[in-house]
Amino acid sequence: MATESENGNCLGWAARDPSGVLSPYKFNRRVLGCDDVSLKITHCGICYADVVWTRNKLGDSKYPVVPGHEIVGIVQDVGSNVHGFKTGDHVGVGTYVDSCRSCEYCDDGLEVHCSKGSVHTFNAVDVDGTITKGGYSSFIVVHERYCYKIPDNYPLAYAAPLLCAGITVYTPMKRHKMDQPGKSLGVIGLGGLGHMAVKFGKAFGLHVTVFSTSISKKEEALNLLGADRFVISSDEQQMQPLTKSLDFIVDTASGDHAFDPYMALLKTYGVLVLVGFPSEIKLHPASIILGSKTIFGSVTGGTKETQEMLEFCAANKIYPEIELVPIQYVNEALERLIKRDIKYRFVIDVENSLK
Amino acid sequence: MATESENGNCLGWAARDPSGVLSPYKFNRRVLGCDDVSLKITHCGICYADVVWTRNKLGDSKYPVVPGHEIVGIVQDVGSNVHGFKTGDHVGVGTYVDSCRSCEYCDDGLEVHCSKGSVHTFNAVDVDGTITKGGYSSFIVVHERYCYKIPDNYPLAYAAPLLCAGITVYTPMKRHKMDQPGKSLGVIGLGGLGHMAVKFGKAFGLHVTVFSTSISKKEEALNLLGADRFVISSDEQQMQPLTKSLDFIVDTASGDHAFDPYMALLKTYGVLVLVGFPSEIKLHPASIILGSKTIFGSVTGGTKETQEMLEFCAANKIYPEIELVPIQYVNEALERLIKRDIKYRFVIDVENSLK
Repeated sequence: MATESENGNCLGWAARDPSGVLSPYKFNRRVLGCDDVSLKITHCGICYADVVWTRNKLGDSKYPVVPGHEIVGIVQDVGSNVHGFKTGDHVGVGTYVDSCRSCEYCDDGLEVHCSKGSVHTFNAVDVDGTITKGGYSSFIVVHERYCYKIPDNYPLAYAAPLLCAGITVYTPMKRHKMDQPGKSLGVIGLGGLGHMAVKFGKAFGLHVTVFSTSISKKEEALNLLGADRFVISSDEQQMQPLTKSLDFIVDTASGDHAFDPYMALLKTYGVLVLVGFPSEIKLHPASIILGSKTIFGSVTGGTKETQEMLEFCAANKIYPEIELVPIQYVNEALERLIKRDIKYRFVIDVENSLK
Repeated sequence: MATESENGNCLGWAARDPSGVLSPYKFNRRVLGCDDVSLKITHCGICYADVVWTRNKLGDSKYPVVPGHEIVGIVQDVGSNVHGFKTGDHVGVGTYVDSCRSCEYCDDGLEVHCSKGSVHTFNAVDVDGTITKGGYSSFIVVHERYCYKIPDNYPLAYAAPLLCAGITVYTPMKRHKMDQPGKSLGVIGLGGLGHMAVKFGKAFGLHVTVFSTSISKKEEALNLLGADRFVISSDEQQMQPLTKSLDFIVDTASGDHAFDPYMALLKTYGVLVLVGFPSEIKLHPASIILGSKTIFGSVTGGTKETQEMLEFCAANKIYPEIELVPIQYVNEALERLIKRDIKYRFVIDVENSLK
């Protein structure tokens, strides 16, 4: 069984209490099992989940918390049963590192929905009883089932945000057939998830409208991300003409917002996919009943679709917008993330800064 | 153009003001057009919509209001272009009597979603500029497109509730593939719509659980309607064991109720279909995001599916539970409907009481 000590085999950065302040921390990763891949971490994306658990927002943080579930690295060793990976491969690890591997969902490559519960990449109880520790660290040991091949031509730093932000929007977009060229997509919120929804939308051939509360995002939404239209959601004169004009909406906003005005923009049979976490969803029944509309919630994706998405991004040259930062900047980065002062995803340059 | 007068060609019962009290009223139906069917009304179901517009609940009632959109009758005449119906046929008319017949929805037999708006069977502006008048009347003239053949072996009185209550639950059940034997269905509310959802569920081979606030409905839910299980929704000890056990829920309750406890009962990818009209929908995002669940709103169905449903009911001997009443009882019936004192649908015996 792995142990935790200040003299472990792995160097990471951990929060020790609900202040959420991270500092260097040594702990032991488990010994490589026969089905495991050990990877030297080169990059780790910073997700809002890292704020949630370093600051004990849900009351279930198990300190020390080493966050990070957008992990990218290079294989340094593989177990005797591992067939899918070899030393030197570029590999990603996402939001979960274990599941039962025998239920109907696991059988379908939908491990995130495992009947017995998938094991989160950090702050969860691992198979050996220890608490999982994430990608703000020098290396990680993961069952090969939960590792993804990063295509050779895809730059590692850019791959990191795909493993949570990317797959979280890609999965519901594919499930609801948002890959039909010519259809229209609205994207609410333009953070880590929202900007990926715009990029996927354009790659799928959709007409993409970005909804934002701030005019400051207009220039980049249109010119950097390639959206077709930018709408200030509080401006009724901009909203009203779009009534019944959208096939789909991807709602990535975690701030509280009204739903009725957006439902009104959907065509008959339109679908709003919810991936953000406002404090509540509140709407009038007529907003969903008239026009037979759908609200679909979604949380990340399975291993099969994650691999598919990585290949889709490589084939279509889809790259997240990132700000590369050293691990020493991580506390400031989390503060800026809370203030939404980020375009559009922080990625920690673990390889060059964690020593 | 048709005119309205106390000496018209059609006898109905109308509400004259927001008191909603109905009394006999004569008006003129339009002259039979070449695409029209004229039917002598034998029966008309009483729907909550009749309360809504006779009492001006939405502020848009156009008095006198002759309600009724679950209409059944016998063809007495057809226009020169009518090919689908002949004198003596048993025919139903549902919640709408016109649409543009040229948009994508009309082309797909989904006239209820007509881009230009379908014309409601009563209290709407008809093609000739008059206000449509519903089935609390002796006859009606309707374009053949919006008439349904009632199979010969199906008793007319029982067909009436199918034309709104029936199709309103049948449509979303079919759309979300709730016709897979062995799957599990929850039904919230046991009124006109809910009791049809139970009957369709059983005909589709589902395991059906009825959720109700009142133990008084248990006996009938299980023994008359054939549900497999009855749960008092306020009893946590009955609700908790059902966590993640249902594939589908059809929510027909129009009283305000919490959504989170029901969402928790859905399996991963579970679907809640909303056909009731509470004052608002309120839930926590986690209730829909975790487990990738769907809320789908639905309002009645298209002509194609309505015809299909009528044939399905005849083939499977599915009959609504009705209380047959004379037209003279209609004010009391509406009062009882408001108090939910009805098992499960009033049907007016127009043929034998309206003279």
